[in-house]
Amino acid sequence: MGLREVKRERTRRLIADKAFELFCDHGFGRTTVEQIAAAAEVGPSTLYRYFPTKETLVLEFVDDCLADAVSWFRDQPTVEPRDGLRTVIERVLEQLESNPDRVRAVFDLAERNGSVSAHLNELIWRFRNDLAAALVRRLPGDPLHAEFVAALSAGITMNVIENVVRVWVDTPHAVNAQSLAHQAMTLLETGALPLPAAQHGSGISDNSRHDS
Amino acid sequence: MGLREVKRERTRRLIADKAFELFCDHGFGRTTVEQIAAAAEVGPSTLYRYFPTKETLVLEFVDDCLADAVSWFRDQPTVEPRDGLRTVIERVLEQLESNPDRVRAVFDLAERNGSVSAHLNELIWRFRNDLAAALVRRLPGDPLHAEFVAALSAGITMNVIENVVRVWVDTPHAVNAQSLAHQAMTLLETGALPLPAAQHGSGISDNSRHDS
Repeated sequence: MGLREVKRERTRRLIADKAFELFCDHGFGRTTVEQIAAAAEVGPSTLYRYFPTKETLVLEFVDDCLADAVSWFRDQPTVEPRDGLRTVIERVLEQLESNPDRVRAVFDLAERNGSVSAHLNELIWRFRNDLAAALVRRLPGDPLHAEFVAALSAGITMNVIENVVRVWVDTPHAVNAQSLAHQAMTLLETGALPLPAAQHGSGISDNSRHDS
Repeated sequence: MGLREVKRERTRRLIADKAFELFCDHGFGRTTVEQIAAAAEVGPSTLYRYFPTKETLVLEFVDDCLADAVSWFRDQPTVEPRDGLRTVIERVLEQLESNPDRVRAVFDLAERNGSVSAHLNELIWRFRNDLAAALVRRLPGDPLHAEFVAALSAGITMNVIENVVRVWVDTPHAVNAQSLAHQAMTLLETGALPLPAAQHGSGISDNSRHDS
């Protein structure tokens, strides 16, 4: 990272931190972009360059956690997919665990505010799509089938994260997110999780196209 | 169902159908509640009684599909969870498949309109929560653990539905949603899906390969 990027990154972080403080103190709806800009000692137009909407400001922390983990996975083309996906989960949770107050606040804001919740869902979809795109290149066989497989895997990976965070965020000091995630992965591995079962005796079909 | 409910249900369906036609012809944003009420020959206040927002009108069909499947599952306390979850998936897809144009339109509207997308995500969350609540009662052991297990299972069930619908909705006449779902469930059952693996040395994994 060059000096300019370091400075840019520092400004971005400062704006997000100040915004977070103001949202917690005064509420999301009652905090204006002008107030955030003043608190961070930048002009509103600078702020907009970094964060085009107030929603992106709230979710900057979550966005970073998810994006960092996907980008790590993308840069590890030789890692075995199962190990890679485990590490993705561990990396996301490690970052979230470093700041439980922020995660709690994001949840609270998303619950009370439709546009924050919508933006959070967008981030989750983007994470699933980006993770699936990084995974699909490692899967053999028919590309359409591989895309379907990768989308399912990425969805389940996100599902583990979501469910762990939902339990953890309520009692961050009593629950260990990593060991909860480990429990979830063990449940997946051992078949102890009740999952929808393919029909009895139907055999395994890999042809979903209609006969013409 | 009494005569009054039948009439009520018929009115509700008529309003939703007329709204759907207008949304497709003129777009979601440009269609007013007054226009929909006029097309369905009811007063706006009647319409609001059935559908408090325009978003609920768009998603009435999806909401019904999901709610019917959960309510079926709730009413089958003796069905084996894996078979029950398979049937939930099959029932949702069966209803969606009966009306591909409507599903396509919902996707288009959700893509273009933040509030429709937000409401769709809400429906999906509600489905996951309701399904988990119906499932948790059938799971033995510690209630907190059972809740976690049920939430993971419900999330994965929804994940299968979402991914099948995403593929199917693009080419509804070339792809069979049910057999795609069957493929997904077979992938889950056979361990052919790359899933995040619990840490090495946990002694449980029999599918995760350890290439070094």
